[in-house]
This record gives sequence, C-alpha cells and structure tokens, in this order.
Amino acid sequence: MYMRRAFYIGRFQPFHLGHYSIIKSIAQDVDELVIGIGSAQKSHEPKNPFTAGERVMMIRHALEDADIAHYAIPIEDLQRNAVWVSHIISMTPPFDTVYSNNPLVIQLFKEVGIEVRQPPMYYRNNGYSGREIRKRMIAEEDWKTLVHPAVADVIEEIHGVERLKQISKTDID
Amino acid sequence: MYMRRAFYIGRFQPFHLGHYSIIKSIAQDVDELVIGIGSAQKSHEPKNPFTAGERVMMIRHALEDADIAHYAIPIEDLQRNAVWVSHIISMTPPFDTVYSNNPLVIQLFKEVGIEVRQPPMYYRNNGYSGREIRKRMIAEEDWKTLVHPAVADVIEEIHGVERLKQISKTDID
Amino acid sequence: MYMRRAFYIGRFQPFHLGHYSIIKSIAQDVDELVIGIGSAQKSHEPKNPFTAGERVMMIRHALEDADIAHYAIPIEDLQRNAVWVSHIISMTPPFDTVYSNNPLVIQLFKEVGIEVRQPPMYYRNNGYSGREIRKRMIAEEDWKTLVHPAVADVIEEIHGVERLKQISKTDID
Amino acid sequence: MYMRRAFYIGRFQPFHLGHYSIIKSIAQDVDELVIGIGSAQKSHEPKNPFTAGERVMMIRHALEDADIAHYAIPIEDLQRNAVWVSHIISMTPPFDTVYSNNPLVIQLFKEVGIEVRQPPMYYRNNGYSGREIRKRMIAEEDWKTLVHPAVADVIEEIHGVERLKQISKTDID
Amino acid sequence: MYMRRAFYIGRFQPFHLGHYSIIKSIAQDVDELVIGIGSAQKSHEPKNPFTAGERVMMIRHALEDADIAHYAIPIEDLQRNAVWVSHIISMTPPFDTVYSNNPLVIQLFKEVGIEVRQPPMYYRNNGYSGREIRKRMIAEEDWKTLVHPAVADVIEEIHGVERLKQISKTDID
Amino acid sequence: MYMRRAFYIGRFQPFHLGHYSIIKSIAQDVDELVIGIGSAQKSHEPKNPFTAGERVMMIRHALEDADIAHYAIPIEDLQRNAVWVSHIISMTPPFDTVYSNNPLVIQLFKEVGIEVRQPPMYYRNNGYSGREIRKRMIAEEDWKTLVHPAVADVIEEIHGVERLKQISKTDID
Repeated sequence: MYMRRAFYIGRFQPFHLGHYSIIKSIAQDVDELVIGIGSAQKSHEPKNPFTAGERVMMIRHALEDADIAHYAIPIEDLQRNAVWVSHIISMTPPFDTVYSNNPLVIQLFKEVGIEVRQPPMYYRNNGYSGREIRKRMIAEEDWKTLVHPAVADVIEEIHGVERLKQISKTDID
Repeated sequence: MYMRRAFYIGRFQPFHLGHYSIIKSIAQDVDELVIGIGSAQKSHEPKNPFTAGERVMMIRHALEDADIAHYAIPIEDLQRNAVWVSHIISMTPPFDTVYSNNPLVIQLFKEVGIEVRQPPMYYRNNGYSGREIRKRMIAEEDWKTLVHPAVADVIEEIHGVERLKQISKTDID
Repeated sequence: MYMRRAFYIGRFQPFHLGHYSIIKSIAQDVDELVIGIGSAQKSHEPKNPFTAGERVMMIRHALEDADIAHYAIPIEDLQRNAVWVSHIISMTPPFDTVYSNNPLVIQLFKEVGIEVRQPPMYYRNNGYSGREIRKRMIAEEDWKTLVHPAVADVIEEIHGVERLKQISKTDID
Repeated sequence: MYMRRAFYIGRFQPFHLGHYSIIKSIAQDVDELVIGIGSAQKSHEPKNPFTAGERVMMIRHALEDADIAHYAIPIEDLQRNAVWVSHIISMTPPFDTVYSNNPLVIQLFKEVGIEVRQPPMYYRNNGYSGREIRKRMIAEEDWKTLVHPAVADVIEEIHGVERLKQISKTDID
Repeated sequence: MYMRRAFYIGRFQPFHLGHYSIIKSIAQDVDELVIGIGSAQKSHEPKNPFTAGERVMMIRHALEDADIAHYAIPIEDLQRNAVWVSHIISMTPPFDTVYSNNPLVIQLFKEVGIEVRQPPMYYRNNGYSGREIRKRMIAEEDWKTLVHPAVADVIEEIHGVERLKQISKTDID
Repeated sequence: MYMRRAFYIGRFQPFHLGHYSIIKSIAQDVDELVIGIGSAQKSHEPKNPFTAGERVMMIRHALEDADIAHYAIPIEDLQRNAVWVSHIISMTPPFDTVYSNNPLVIQLFKEVGIEVRQPPMYYRNNGYSGREIRKRMIAEEDWKTLVHPAVADVIEEIHGVERLKQISKTDID
C-alpha cells in the first residue's frame, strides 16, 4: 500500500508552537510525517541546550493528542553538505516531499531533484522561534506561551531552564 | 505522570521474530519501550545490509498490530566503549531498565549502575538470528518464516535480498 | 630524472585570475606544480559554495591553454594544525618548495623545515579575491572579469551563482 | 562542449598492468577518465602500503606515454556506504558512466541510477592483482613484470619494497 | 590506600600564574591532582597557539619546585557535550572532586552527580588570563610577569611568541 | 639545560613486567622518559579491556618506587599512519630517541629521520605479553606473576578480570 510520506527537519531547540502548527498543516496533505531532529549530537550549548533524546520527548508529547502518524529521527551532523541528503535518506523511512524554509535544506534537496515545499512562516511574527524562546528563558521572561504545554513539562522535568542559564554564563578564557 | 520505560538495542539486520518476541515480552513489564537501532551508520555490508531508515520501517510495520508504545531511534557507533552509555542516554528518552543479552552492553550499563535484565533466548534454537537469515538469503533458502510478514514486505520493496547477494560477492583486491 | 616540483594551496572558492597569475608565475621556476584544493569536504556554504570536484574542473579548464604541468589534488581538513603538513605530504607527489601567502601555511611548513616562498600579491588591489567575487555574485554585480572565461563557464554550467545566492539567504533559527 | 567522462576507482596498492590495460580499454570509449584513488587516507599497512600521493605518481607516470586525458583524485573513506556515491560525486568532475568490477561499487552506483559497466577481467589469471604483487614483494619474488616500468621506478625511489617488508613483520601484542 | 584526588581542567594557552595559584590552593585539600589539558588536538591557532605536548612541558616545569603530586593528561575534544564527562573519566585516574569556574564544565559534572567546587577567581583582576597574555605577546607588551619563569622558558625555547604573531596575521580569503 | 628524553609507546593492556624491565633499562640511558599510551580511546574490548586512565594508574603505581622521571600520555588513534608521527610529537614533550620493537612504529619514525632503538625482547619467552596475560585472566590461570604487584592491585580495584571475562563472552549476532 502506497504511503504519502513527507520529511520535515529542524533543530527543535526547543520544539515550539511554530513547529507544531507547521506539522499540523503538513499532516493534512500526507499519510505519515518523518521528523528529522537535526544536530542530534549537540546539547548543552547556548544555541543547542537540549539533547536529541529530550527533543524526541518534546515532539512525542506535543503530538500525542494530535493523532499525527510520525517518526522522530535524530540526525547527526556530518559537516559535509554534499552528502547530507544521502545521509538523511539513509536514516529515514522513504519520503517523497520535503517541507522546509531553510535556504540550505531547500537547495540541497533541489539539487538532487527532490521536491521541496515551503510551509507558511507567518508565525515568526509572534515570537515562535527557538532563539527568542532561549533568550526569554535566560532573561526569565515568559516563554511557556510559545510552546505546547507538554513541551513546557518536559523542559521543567529536565531542569532545562536552569541548564540553559548556567551554560550561557560567560567564561573568561 | 511516571512512565516505566525500558531500553532494548540491536542491529536488527534484519528485524526478526526473535526480536519481535522479546519486545512483546518486555512490553508486558513496561509502559513504553525505546528501541535503539545500533550501528545506524552502517549499510550495504554483508553483516549490515540495511540502512537505519529501512530498519526503522521494519520495526514500525512489524509492531503495528501489536499495539506497543515504542520509539525506534537510530544510534550511530562512536567506536569508544567508555562513552557509549552516555551517547545512548543523550539520544533517547529516559529509561530505567535495559534489556540485553549482549555481554558488552550488559557490562557497560552495569558499570554505570543501570539495571540490566536478560530476556529469554530460547528462540536462538529456531534459527532466529540475523546471521542465519542473511545466510539463507544469500543461499536462496527459506528465510521469510523467520521474520514478521511486514518485514518480508519491506525487504522485498527495497530489493534487499538482491542487494545482499550482490554485496556479498567476493572481490579480488 | 629529477623534477623541480612546487606546492601551492588555496580554497579556490572560486579559482580566479589572481590564482591564475600566481600559478603562471610559479610555473616559470619549476617543472611541475601540485595544486592543493583545501577544505575539499566543504561546499554549499556561503564561504565555500563549490565542491572539490567543481574546483578541480575550474582549475583544469583555466590552465588548459597555459600548458602548465600540474596535479590538482583535493585536500580534506583534519582540524589538527599539528599534523597538517604530514597530511599534505601523504596526499601529494613530492615537492621541494611551497608557495603561499597564508600566514598559517607559511608557519606550518617552516616549522618542519620546508622552504616557503611568497608569491607577489599585487593583484589583491584589483578585487581578485574569493570573498570579493562571492560578494559580487550575490549582489548581481560583475564578477566574470575576475575569473578566467573557462571558470565562468564551469560556474554557469553548475548554476553556481544561483546556488550561492540561495544558500546565502538568512534563516531564522 | 559535451565531454564523455567515465569514472574508475581502485585502491591501486600498487597500480599494476591490470589497471593499466583496463584504463586503456576504457579510454577508447570516452573523452576523459576520472580515476578515483580509494582509501586515500591509508598507507603503511600490509594491505595498503603506499600513500595517496605515491599512488598519484604511479598513475601519472604510467599513463604519461599513453596520452589518456585523466584526473587522478584521492578519495578518503567515509565508512558510510549509504553516502559514498555522493562523496565521490562531490570530489570529482562530473561523469556519466562508471567502470567497476567491485560488487559493492556496482551496487551503490546502481541504487542511485548511475550506469555501471564491467571491464574485462581476463588479466586476473596472470597475477595482475595488488594482493599477488604485495605477496611477491615480501617474498622477494619477481613482481616488476606485473607493473609498468614507471611504477617500478616510483616504488624503488620511495623504497616501497623495504617499507612493505618492514611493516609486514608480525609483532607480538 | 585511599587517595583524595581532584580534577582540574583548562586549555592552558598558556599555563599562567592564575592556573598556578589555583593548583597550589587545590593541592592543600587533596593528595593528588589530575590536570586535564583541554582541546589537546588544537594548536597553531590564535586562540590555541601551543600543542598539548608543549602545554604538558609548561605544567611540568612550573610545578617542579612546588612538590605537587599530579598527572597532566591531554584531553581531545569530542564535540559532544553529552558524553564529555564519560570521555574525561575514561582518560584519567579516578577522582572524587572537580575544581572549575567554567560554567559548562560545572553543569556537565553536576548533571552526573559529581561534586564541583569553584576555586577563587580573584586573580582575573590582575591580567592572569590566556586571552590577555596572548594579546600582549602579539602587541609585544610585557607578558612574562603573568607566567611562571619556567613557562616563559618553554615558550622561548619553542619560539612561541613568533609563532603566535605569525599565525595571527590576517589573511585575505 | 638540555634533557635527554626518550619515547616509548605501547597499548599496555595491561602494563606488565616486560614493559617494566624495558623502561628500567631505557631509563639508564636518558634523563626522562615519555610513555605513550596507545589506542587511548579504546577500552572494554577483549584486546583492549582497560581505559587510558586505568593504564595511566598502572604505570604510575608500578614506577613509583623505581624513581624514573616520566610522563604517561594517552595517545588516541587517528587511523592515518602517514600523520601518526606528527600526532605523537604534538601530544608529547620533545624527545630525541624512540625505543620500540613494533615494526610499524620503527618504520614510521625512521621515515621522518628520528632514531629508533630496539630494546631487548628476551622477556617474551617468559609469557610477558598482554595477549598471554589476558588469556590467563579469562582462563582463571595465574597472571599476577607477570605484572608488578601495584598493577595487580589496580586491576583488582577496578574489577578488571571480571570485566574482561564478561566482554569476552561470545554473542550471537
């Protein structure tokens, strides 16, 4: 039986409502969604505070009630753009469409002839970006309204805000 | 809400009925199961013919009707046993028990104080091993009775037997 | 029969007339020239848009009519300066002189006692730098006068300007 | 102007008359030949005694009088079969046909839809294999008749036989 | 016989009197000190001019007269924060306390339940920082008062200031 | 003040009386000895059961009473023989002589013009080899007479024999 399957990738640091709304929108067009968790080997960095496992949890819990058939697959960086698409394909179930707004991702898939669609980005205006959320976490401003409640729970459970604040302190050489 | 979550790892080259029966048995003791797909970066080798993505598909389809809450997570080798457990932990949702019959896996988790249980291995007697299945594929003997029908379908779809036979041919330097 | 052979390395993103004139100048002093294509594993980055293979093509076509005996050798980064010279030596035919204006390259070869000569750099004044050319490509300004016509052809054939413009778009987190 | 370009890969430990005759045969069908030097990062091993640079020299000198337009490109192993073809493509000028008798190489290119032709292998009967030549070098038997005279010269110049004999001595743990 | 052993890590580019005074202060509380030389694989960079071996020498010579039982262990980066503590533990004799002012180091050890103490940082006010010393070396200002005389000797012997000045020159693309 | 410094490398799995007697013999000729702990990143393997840190401990304790000025430096494998000597040099204090019976080590240092001396190997006859000791550990035969008592203590403390026996059990695919 043929499955329409799409691929969507992000770093999800953290997984926020912008990602969530894109996924719900993609899900209307396909049978299953493969969610790549990029830079999987990174964590405990100001720009990448959460481990791949923690990001798997965020995605699973956030999508629990949405009834979206999906795979959440950690993808480690290879630092070689020319082989990145092959790397993705080897780590994931087969898909026929890619959804991305990332200029590099779009270029790499297009060069090998795989269709790329750009999901709507309206949500950027509302602060739905990882950078904004991490900034608010450090500044002790409200960030919970930008993520699914289940994601806020995961972050709380792993003391994610404390971790981010600690590793964001500057160190002198 | 607390989840009892277990970790089970294998190379799954391919995922066979031995793995399947172990997973069904573990599932009775826990709420969720994290399935690590080991040597994820390997494929197209006589001992590792299938990609991580193909193995994700086998597991997903085989478990579809069994109603077992699970995560299938590709795990790349780091070639450093001393950090392997930390690597696993960083790529997976948290778990409190490990199920394994692999002597090295047992040792590595025990050294960091994580409980390891050994699932029953009776099935080995019946040919349920990756090595046996790969041998039969090459010899054109019956192997389909050793895997879930959904796994046989995945392997057929990707022309897995043809691939394994081709890459197993010997080459002279 | 003894060969006077020189080594010259660059990233060649892209190969421009500054490189070309240096090579023609070096060629007068030696029998053969080994051209190392640095950061060979990088491509599809704003600072490194072209693959090693594409850069091999640029060099080959640009030098075609100049009748300069040369080897164009892709050199991958090792991220370990202390072993870089040994890495170069292992990947290339033997050479007795290095030509470079790069301060690090000069230092590394000098520390192991290999002679380094600095080719004239007058051309910088005329915009012959990779950075300048990439900037003009993005800004849709004239860049073709800064490269050999054969290089412009290669870049056109691979849609190099379109690629560079696309991957240089900024993405929000 | 369109070029018919073929790709041929080997480890060339060392480059012997079997390789030479294959290349001459391929050259009749194409305009240019891209010669990939596999396992480029390996050297000083019993199965891989020569550096990539030394192998580049062997190929260049052997083909000097044959007037075959070619590129000799060192290719480092990535240890990930699933991305190997992309890696090759990124390091080489574009080609439309692959010539190989290696079962894995054939499979990997076929899976991405690139045509693979198998050159005649008759020469195996005459000892034209790297393994045989290395065995003879260690046993101090005649090996020079199996390589082009220019290759024998390169090996002599780098004291290649002495190196191979020394590194092939067994060491006790 | 039980040993109180502490772990202290730095990049030591170079090893200066701030490090020295911290080590003397830690030494009063423990029997032995394990000194990790971080980013061991880096050298010949403006921020990391010295090799691990050179840094081993600086530490050994500086501590010679202080009679502090210690191990100086080069630690290569793994670029994976989640396994960093396991990596450290595998490369070093066992220790029960970590001394660090680095926010990331503190966080990583705390997450695995290892006690971290913060040594006094008063010395920062006096210019005792690697960055300041490297800056002064390049500017030809006084830096020798910031390091132990034995360290100044090591740096002189390896022509460290000349190296740093050379590799800090800017290069145009 | 000039130091005569020698380099000696081994995997030390484990450090045994053969190593010990070689070191005592070398120590008579030099002022200081740099001991490289090879394959530092390996552990928990049948051929490499002990971590680099554990091997540092064995060496330190065994040499404690011998009053030999030495550095024990973990050296990670790079899997590139052509850059191995540079890698060693970058991780260690400078040395002028190498002591080794390993054919590859001898070849690699000789190729770059560093003097290599071969220490006497008479001890092999008495079972002083890592392989023999590991075999005896698994077979529960006497191995303690082959190592320094301080090394036996380290191995006992880390439950080294239990670890080796466990990881040496065979696993079926």
